[in-house]
Amino acid sequence: MYCDCFASGDIMDKNNKQMYINFIELEKTMRAVDIIIKKRDGGELTKEEIEFFIQGFNRGEIPDYQASAWAMAVVLKGMSPQETTDLTMAMAHSGEVLDLSSAVRFAVDKHSTGGVGDKTTLVVAPVVAACGLPVGKMSGRGLGFSGGTLDKLESIPGFRVNLSMEEFLSQLSRIGVVVTGQTADLAPADGKLYALRDVTGTVPSIPLIASSIMSKKIAAGARAIVLDVKVGSGAFMKTLPEAQSLAKLMVEIGRLAGRETIALISDMNQPLGEFVGNALELKEAINTLHDQGSKDFREHCLVVAGEMLALGKHASNVQEGMRMAEKALKDGSAWEKFKAFVAAQGGDPSYIEHPDKLPAAPIVSVIEAPRAGYIQKVDAQRVGEAAVLLGAGRTRKGEPIDPAVGIQVHVKVGDEVRQGEPLFTLHARDQASLDLARGHLVQAIGWNEAPVEVLPLFYGVVRAGE
Amino acid sequence: MYCDCFASGDIMDKNNKQMYINFIELEKTMRAVDIIIKKRDGGELTKEEIEFFIQGFNRGEIPDYQASAWAMAVVLKGMSPQETTDLTMAMAHSGEVLDLSSAVRFAVDKHSTGGVGDKTTLVVAPVVAACGLPVGKMSGRGLGFSGGTLDKLESIPGFRVNLSMEEFLSQLSRIGVVVTGQTADLAPADGKLYALRDVTGTVPSIPLIASSIMSKKIAAGARAIVLDVKVGSGAFMKTLPEAQSLAKLMVEIGRLAGRETIALISDMNQPLGEFVGNALELKEAINTLHDQGSKDFREHCLVVAGEMLALGKHASNVQEGMRMAEKALKDGSAWEKFKAFVAAQGGDPSYIEHPDKLPAAPIVSVIEAPRAGYIQKVDAQRVGEAAVLLGAGRTRKGEPIDPAVGIQVHVKVGDEVRQGEPLFTLHARDQASLDLARGHLVQAIGWNEAPVEVLPLFYGVVRAGE
Repeated sequence: MYCDCFASGDIMDKNNKQMYINFIELEKTMRAVDIIIKKRDGGELTKEEIEFFIQGFNRGEIPDYQASAWAMAVVLKGMSPQETTDLTMAMAHSGEVLDLSSAVRFAVDKHSTGGVGDKTTLVVAPVVAACGLPVGKMSGRGLGFSGGTLDKLESIPGFRVNLSMEEFLSQLSRIGVVVTGQTADLAPADGKLYALRDVTGTVPSIPLIASSIMSKKIAAGARAIVLDVKVGSGAFMKTLPEAQSLAKLMVEIGRLAGRETIALISDMNQPLGEFVGNALELKEAINTLHDQGSKDFREHCLVVAGEMLALGKHASNVQEGMRMAEKALKDGSAWEKFKAFVAAQGGDPSYIEHPDKLPAAPIVSVIEAPRAGYIQKVDAQRVGEAAVLLGAGRTRKGEPIDPAVGIQVHVKVGDEVRQGEPLFTLHARDQASLDLARGHLVQAIGWNEAPVEVLPLFYGVVRAGE
Repeated sequence: MYCDCFASGDIMDKNNKQMYINFIELEKTMRAVDIIIKKRDGGELTKEEIEFFIQGFNRGEIPDYQASAWAMAVVLKGMSPQETTDLTMAMAHSGEVLDLSSAVRFAVDKHSTGGVGDKTTLVVAPVVAACGLPVGKMSGRGLGFSGGTLDKLESIPGFRVNLSMEEFLSQLSRIGVVVTGQTADLAPADGKLYALRDVTGTVPSIPLIASSIMSKKIAAGARAIVLDVKVGSGAFMKTLPEAQSLAKLMVEIGRLAGRETIALISDMNQPLGEFVGNALELKEAINTLHDQGSKDFREHCLVVAGEMLALGKHASNVQEGMRMAEKALKDGSAWEKFKAFVAAQGGDPSYIEHPDKLPAAPIVSVIEAPRAGYIQKVDAQRVGEAAVLLGAGRTRKGEPIDPAVGIQVHVKVGDEVRQGEPLFTLHARDQASLDLARGHLVQAIGWNEAPVEVLPLFYGVVRAGE
């Protein structure tokens, strides 16, 4: 028989016992290093542990070097949906959590994970607002080959993206649509953590990406959130299973946080619409708001708007929402709403009434098809990178961009093209950048002798509880 | 047919091409974040990448938050022997790399990975030196339940552990034995990285542990190194396979660095020898140097000394080395060498001539066996923790310790014990710490009705190229 203890050896009183337990187990009070170790060893963190860590990090009590080691452990060991939700809420509550109900009964927000040619907000925000559902959105700037809504809007002289909270709420109530940079210190822990992840190789983690997006959306105060998760060569999520995981996780977080949330999974293998570049995309959006422009982009906008209207209970289902959105495009109410929105934020209306006044590049050059065939590929990432080479995007935060430059994409996957037909029209500031972009676009197109199937716009929708 | 390129689309000249490649691939110059990402994704780092990272970290150009994320990636993704060697050499060369050849033709060093009751250096250093092979060792202080050689030596009034480099070399040449704290800025990158690992949950990685130990040993300048890798409950390596991995890796690093290196794998499931505590262990070492004292500790010392003598070519093999070492114990030459060593470092010789003058604790209390039986377990970690509770060790760097207190361990695994026989004698400063330690020791002993096999002293030896 093996006996692990004395028959009656416990001579310590309770106080002493506590002292020695504290000593031997090295303090039972929460310590950042123990939370890192637990995650390193694949454990599931409690809500209390996550709050302790995020609050301590946000206050500067937990140093960057502990947060980055923890983030690496999360990247390599993952987090459960519950942990991800707890992290999201801890980051959302690290700053102000807006309440838009003083301005409007119910506001809807949308968020795209970023892509090439994605000017959707410019169209769907006025469309949905024109249908009577307020859209209050805090947007971001472009980085790398993904464009940013704020940059596109700033192509309009005078347009302000730095509204105060009062201006934001007042415009939301008055016009029903507002798109600005962050007005308040929303989810500061997320901002701090993201900056750290960016330089420590800890970006690619679906739980960290989901909580980063959702913490800001939750703090921004909308009651309903339509997520547009891009998948493909021009998106952060390269594969459908990854995109589905991210979409499901974000919808689940939204549900647990009491926000109506759905996620569309949409294609980003080829650019969305016909134009890439800031003023060019603004012009394309204006076209779409006049019920013209490229078919794929229009359809994409109608689906997103339909989902927003259905989620905001302004339509009984997506189909009805899409019909309402289409009507707003056809009857000019969306366009009127867009004009009111631009004017309210200080933009000069003459520039959107007469888009030829918008910044235009001095050099326009066409790349023609060197052969006949079917288009197998229009690599979104390469097109986005070529746009950055032209000066339409930035590689580092804070870099200036050139609103005038960009690319018109004449072809879609599945198109049949004859030799000499235009593939791209480049809008460049100078010959050097034009040559760079041309060279880069060379490899964006793939050809096939036989007919090629067109790419779908959407791969699915993720709704709560599915 | 699928064609991924234009027939003749490459219109860029070489310069432009280079510019765009630089841009798109975001600088081909080395960046810390790319090295982190490579390790995160399980890649093998090149020598150049490791040197870049360690040198940058050591100079403060690579911040702690990048180093800790990298360390976590190493913990979870591992490193190859080549990477570990490159890391070791990069850390060794981050500061001074000593050359002892100005003092002695050939010096040998030893290193124990730390255990309870491990006073081996106090015996083997003078034994090996008495056999004519110089021993120059830079040692450390105890932390947690592992004791430190410097702390034990400081039980002798006047003993200095802060020798200058000149004093170190002079004593090595004159006396043939010197044990001090780090005299120079050895492997500062290791010191910096270890401090960071300690607070970021990135300690338990065999490659990181191996490179930490070996970088300091290589920088300390000995031509030959005997490693004593402890395994068991009172050691950092809890299992034999772990200890074997660590031992093999360190021996391989030593070989690649041009140092004669072997590793013993020795038991640390129960304490080594009979005493745990600073002055108590010093007294035990003095006993052993008089060719008395506990059998297991004496045998352990003879094997370590025999390996050192064989590695230093002062014996043709370990058996001859052990016989030389035994002779040095019997003929008093090891004891004379110890006295010369203590005197050279300022220690008052009267304290080692008359060990009853050494610090002694006011309270001495015996724990008796509450039953009869065979000893199944004498948990080294619990004994070490009880010694810390008495004040013999520290839980944080820089804490003072009490040289007088400690524990005499009367039993070994396999012993047959009658009820009432002594298990432990505690040497305490006060009643409170005595009670705490008693309570903790309660669970250190495991009993068995049937005879129990004794534990081996060693589980094996790892030699280069095996």
